[in-house]
Amino acid sequence: MSRTADEAAVEAANTAFYEAMETGDFEGVSALWLDDGATPITCVHPGWPVLTGRGEVLRSYALIMANTEYIQFFLTDLKISLAGNTAVVTCTENILSGGPPEDGAELGPLVGQLVVATNVFRHTSDGWRIWSHHASPVLADTDDTEETGDPGDDEPRPDQA
Amino acid sequence: MSRTADEAAVEAANTAFYEAMETGDFEGVSALWLDDGATPITCVHPGWPVLTGRGEVLRSYALIMANTEYIQFFLTDLKISLAGNTAVVTCTENILSGGPPEDGAELGPLVGQLVVATNVFRHTSDGWRIWSHHASPVLADTDDTEETGDPGDDEPRPDQA
Repeated sequence: MSRTADEAAVEAANTAFYEAMETGDFEGVSALWLDDGATPITCVHPGWPVLTGRGEVLRSYALIMANTEYIQFFLTDLKISLAGNTAVVTCTENILSGGPPEDGAELGPLVGQLVVATNVFRHTSDGWRIWSHHASPVLADTDDTEETGDPGDDEPRPDQA
Repeated sequence: MSRTADEAAVEAANTAFYEAMETGDFEGVSALWLDDGATPITCVHPGWPVLTGRGEVLRSYALIMANTEYIQFFLTDLKISLAGNTAVVTCTENILSGGPPEDGAELGPLVGQLVVATNVFRHTSDGWRIWSHHASPVLADTDDTEETGDPGDDEPRPDQA
């Protein structure tokens, strides 16, 4: 495949990952994670510690889906860096989500969240599969970073963020 | 190199990265980032948006070093997942840091911080180099996750963390 076709395939796998989350498709999410019997997978949800291996990672998705009535991802700033059989995808996940309704309410409260993700994909005979997912909340004010990419002096130091 | 020698080399590169940060060695940090002229690098500091490319990434380290008088990383939970010329390293960065002294004080205030990182390394003719670094604060109570890796029901949902 040409580099462009590879990039399109990686982007399609990345999109499929978020769509499976949106539709609560646990089997779909499971199928997208690398399962080659040799390469351990890792996953960090926003604010969580590192989860390692299929058991831990897939349990976390089952837990998230059980507690999420509604979730939608608006992906922006998607960038793909390809080398050999590996791709590093970064994107901003603009998340709108809600939990199950409580106390007889019709809908649970909706929450908006700004999260950035680094998703590492590995090419297999079945296509591109997720090797590592690391998502984290954006806490700093990014207003002046979007154009220059240079965090201003008035932003918190990362070691104090 | 055998798989074990590769893992040792990846771990050495990972250690060198944090030691260069500790000693404020900007040239050392710069040299450890992948610079093959073809593969864009990406970096996420805790709470920050994604930084892409050598210019943005290295400027962020210059900024951090300029605002950090003292920083020490105690790495725990280090795990390496290797496939071909790529390695995914996860670790917990137990960080102790302090900024420049203010108002005539001898030392700035020290801050402890619990951060998890996913570091992606690429093998080059010069050794293993950092392709992607994503670090994020651990916000959830991890007391009951260390043994089972299974976040309890009483923890915040990742989409609300």
